Amino acid sequence: MNSRQNSNRISEFSLIGKYFAPFVGNGSFGLQDDAAEIVPSKGMSLVITQDAIAEGIHFFADDGPMLIAQKALRVNLSDLAAKGATPKYISLALGLGKSWSEEWVADFAKGLREDCTAFSVQLTGGDTFTTDAGFVISITAIGELPTGQYVSRLEAKPGDVLYVTGYIGDGALGLLARQNKLDGLGNEDRTYLIDRYLLPQPRIEISPAILKFATASMDISDGLVGDLEKLCNASEVSANIDVKNIPFSTTSMRLVESESNSLNTVLTGGDDYEILITINPADCEAFEDAVSSMSFSVKRIGTISGGQGVKVFDTDGQVIEFNKTSYDHSGENH
Amino acid sequence: MNSRQNSNRISEFSLIGKYFAPFVGNGSFGLQDDAAEIVPSKGMSLVITQDAIAEGIHFFADDGPMLIAQKALRVNLSDLAAKGATPKYISLALGLGKSWSEEWVADFAKGLREDCTAFSVQLTGGDTFTTDAGFVISITAIGELPTGQYVSRLEAKPGDVLYVTGYIGDGALGLLARQNKLDGLGNEDRTYLIDRYLLPQPRIEISPAILKFATASMDISDGLVGDLEKLCNASEVSANIDVKNIPFSTTSMRLVESESNSLNTVLTGGDDYEILITINPADCEAFEDAVSSMSFSVKRIGTISGGQGVKVFDTDGQVIEFNKTSYDHSGENH
Repeated sequence: MNSRQNSNRISEFSLIGKYFAPFVGNGSFGLQDDAAEIVPSKGMSLVITQDAIAEGIHFFADDGPMLIAQKALRVNLSDLAAKGATPKYISLALGLGKSWSEEWVADFAKGLREDCTAFSVQLTGGDTFTTDAGFVISITAIGELPTGQYVSRLEAKPGDVLYVTGYIGDGALGLLARQNKLDGLGNEDRTYLIDRYLLPQPRIEISPAILKFATASMDISDGLVGDLEKLCNASEVSANIDVKNIPFSTTSMRLVESESNSLNTVLTGGDDYEILITINPADCEAFEDAVSSMSFSVKRIGTISGGQGVKVFDTDGQVIEFNKTSYDHSGENH
Repeated sequence: MNSRQNSNRISEFSLIGKYFAPFVGNGSFGLQDDAAEIVPSKGMSLVITQDAIAEGIHFFADDGPMLIAQKALRVNLSDLAAKGATPKYISLALGLGKSWSEEWVADFAKGLREDCTAFSVQLTGGDTFTTDAGFVISITAIGELPTGQYVSRLEAKPGDVLYVTGYIGDGALGLLARQNKLDGLGNEDRTYLIDRYLLPQPRIEISPAILKFATASMDISDGLVGDLEKLCNASEVSANIDVKNIPFSTTSMRLVESESNSLNTVLTGGDDYEILITINPADCEAFEDAVSSMSFSVKRIGTISGGQGVKVFDTDGQVIEFNKTSYDHSGENH
């Protein structure tokens, strides 16, 4: 890592040595070098993805540093999982906001370290610097998969069946709960939703099944409907989904049933970090077998057809209209 | 790339399609996917590095967007060059500051595109987002080298000869010129120095010679003396250098001779992006032959010994004392 000293406090170079160096991988020279060597396994390609999160946009200034680190990591692992890749390495650019303290960095490193262990990824290095305002964390994640088996969002075919992992909309409702914009929520539901917003669960477990069976796949970060539109546009297909087939948690189901706005929130809100998967009908049985014992649900929610666009049908078979199908991560919400 | 829409202006997803997609590499799916596949060449390892630059810290708000893009890229290519790696891919996290405009993004993309062509690197993807204040650009660069030949900063040995590329201190003086803190500077000198500050010249050309001959190598981003200290600490050696052997441009030589403060600035100031290289004495002749026809100078400036620390001798053979040996990139200077 490069050193960018802050003369009034412990230097960032020292911070790196103290908090990040202890958990780096082989080839990273204890973070004493500016770069790291990655030796690919035989027959494997690397998959690279880079998602950044910024204070006031993707997280709140007073979110815990451990959680911020873990969110920054997990949004990237979610992308790798959707490509069928096994996460291997991460590189970190840590932009310290004006309010940084050594304690903040220590907690951030602790959170990152725990997740690196939990997800078997190695920190290769990166950069620490100061910004003129808030914190910005940019993680680049690298995974591995057998050469030629990368699963893009461009190859969904008419006739394919559309699946989704986990529950849709908890993250978007969690953001509202975090902002105290959800009334009449019990403590338990509130805690559940906020946790789902703060700490995405990357669906690494399903990577092998995606690699084996999926025609296309992508993670949902900006809303089910909008991201499905992107998949359809990229594959030049259309999709029809039924609301009654979309998996909701008990908490969000209760909100959707009691408040009409909530359906819009859960279908077009951000921060799901679940995965959309398309499967050729001939492979559906084998795919469903393969995912039947996962720690999360994998539900069939619709079908892919020719043409373009996404239609969402309500329980009466009517097409639901949306003002906006993607979540806007830029500012107004925080 | 992920889309982070800004509802009042053209969405970032559209921006990506319009300005960045046209120049992406194979395996990147025209930036329509969240990730990209990298197929390593046979017998080659990948080298990964990630340096970020932030408005108000590493560049000025009113620097040209093309130059900002190129600086963000080049500081990373400089790291790869120092490791003996050939640059291949970059991933971009572009944090748009509050003042962003489509024109800014168009110019930024133009600058990046020109440099991607000039340095034969492919954009694999990344992320565009908004920040709550200034622009932040985090580029991850990936290069290739034969497996096992990575050149770190940890293997300099007593007896090695120390070399440096290019001229030292122009970047630091360029920053002062950019801030109108250098008096009595002619227009030509001023333009030369500011250009050296704004637009680093990564020394890619010397990578093969580093790979073949260097025992250790690193790029100088935070000052010659401070970065040499880091190399010495990492290798557990010491270094002695003579000021009279350090290469200065005609412009900076004039400033150093006319103003006593300038020597301190050029030896400990940031933004050189030149490379420190240590060579076993038995290889010096072959190394000097190999670098004799480069487009920049490669000068012998000192020697590596046992023990620790860096001593810089002035023209009278006296050791120069520095208050601070590394440049502080965090805020006070801008």
